[in-house]
Amino acid sequence: MVEQCVLPLIRRERNIVPVRSRHLKAAGEAESKVDARVEPIYKNYPNVETTILSSPGIVSLHFTWRGDPFSKEAETVLDELVNHIEAELGHSVFTHSEESLAAVLGNRLRARSLTLATAESCTGGWIGKLLTDVSGSSEFFRGGVVSYSDEAKRDLLGVRASDLEQYGAVSEVVAGQMAAGVRSRFQADVGLSVTGIAGPEGGRPEKPVGTVYLGLSLARGDQTRSLFLPGGREAVRLRTCHLALDWVRREIT
Amino acid sequence: MVEQCVLPLIRRERNIVPVRSRHLKAAGEAESKVDARVEPIYKNYPNVETTILSSPGIVSLHFTWRGDPFSKEAETVLDELVNHIEAELGHSVFTHSEESLAAVLGNRLRARSLTLATAESCTGGWIGKLLTDVSGSSEFFRGGVVSYSDEAKRDLLGVRASDLEQYGAVSEVVAGQMAAGVRSRFQADVGLSVTGIAGPEGGRPEKPVGTVYLGLSLARGDQTRSLFLPGGREAVRLRTCHLALDWVRREIT
Repeated sequence: MVEQCVLPLIRRERNIVPVRSRHLKAAGEAESKVDARVEPIYKNYPNVETTILSSPGIVSLHFTWRGDPFSKEAETVLDELVNHIEAELGHSVFTHSEESLAAVLGNRLRARSLTLATAESCTGGWIGKLLTDVSGSSEFFRGGVVSYSDEAKRDLLGVRASDLEQYGAVSEVVAGQMAAGVRSRFQADVGLSVTGIAGPEGGRPEKPVGTVYLGLSLARGDQTRSLFLPGGREAVRLRTCHLALDWVRREIT
Repeated sequence: MVEQCVLPLIRRERNIVPVRSRHLKAAGEAESKVDARVEPIYKNYPNVETTILSSPGIVSLHFTWRGDPFSKEAETVLDELVNHIEAELGHSVFTHSEESLAAVLGNRLRARSLTLATAESCTGGWIGKLLTDVSGSSEFFRGGVVSYSDEAKRDLLGVRASDLEQYGAVSEVVAGQMAAGVRSRFQADVGLSVTGIAGPEGGRPEKPVGTVYLGLSLARGDQTRSLFLPGGREAVRLRTCHLALDWVRREIT
């Protein structure tokens, strides 16, 4: 925590003074829900300026001390506030720094000597892009398949043609087989899959735009999840990426 | 052109007046080189405000008439300037609107009833992400493989183990086999591949950070290209994505 308190400096009235601040990021819950949970807490800290920045699937909370930065109180109060927020948000909090969700997940995978492979349909490679934004990602990311067509799901991931026919490409059954298939194909410890309808076209009454299924395959077994996400094409896709990465983070912890 | 001239409006001195402007975007050349080529042209148009925005691999040029927006001269001069710029930049210009390079490529592929598949190493899925940002991309994008490991290059794309051994994963030989392999695996008309060293780690004297090989496989034959790109990890990766997409755009035109 020392680095966070001492290093960030801003100019105030021609003097350089330290800014006492804390930072945390949360994932895995709707941004509005996170805000509703933390607002009653930070409202009790009038000496702390709270800034909330959200992108689809990620909420960043910044707490800055308004008063004398040299007072002992600053550190004590900020620590207390952050502890309250963490107690409320629990495992949703994934970092106290600026690092990305993919970087945090990468570190966890590395620490456990686990590797990950991805099978992406509606996200089209975005999860792989986020993972490989992280320098040194080849240590934990083995690669993936962008299975934008039914043929790719069948031929490259081993999804059963009869299940594609019966349940459709956007289904829990297919998500599960994609995750298991990519884990096996890439000889990875973790297989993660996504199939969904990002829109604006392709929605149907029983599967509207924003319907997304995730699959997770681990040595101990396979799981699937259904999501119904708000927003346009970009928001649905980015939220899907973050929810999927966060799911792996929670499951391997 | 009518829409571009009439629709954009800004408030000036409480009146709403049309802004006479033109826009074009270019790819496939270093941004500084594009600027050096067009500067002698737009410098001769003092009544036009030129704004140049560049991101790795893409240059956006905006030309706005400074004078009376209702003058006949505005349209004539802007058209003349844009024609001069286009004559200079040639095929590097890919659009006169805000649409992305991936969207322009998608439209060309669709118009020619061609499909594309991608094999990505150092870009990690980013090319797939850019292609699937485009709504309706399943009409022209069949999917891809993120072959971050040697095993994936060999097992999923059919790259020869002996060539991986002899030339290394980052080589023209491997790029060529990746493109041909992904084209065949996805039964696509066009196979596009990328393998390179995005850094900051992994550079060697003979293959420094920024060394990237592209492969393009078409019915009429296969080609490869070597790139040596400046910048950090993100810039190398994004520039690679744009150069790769632009290469396909030029080759299918």
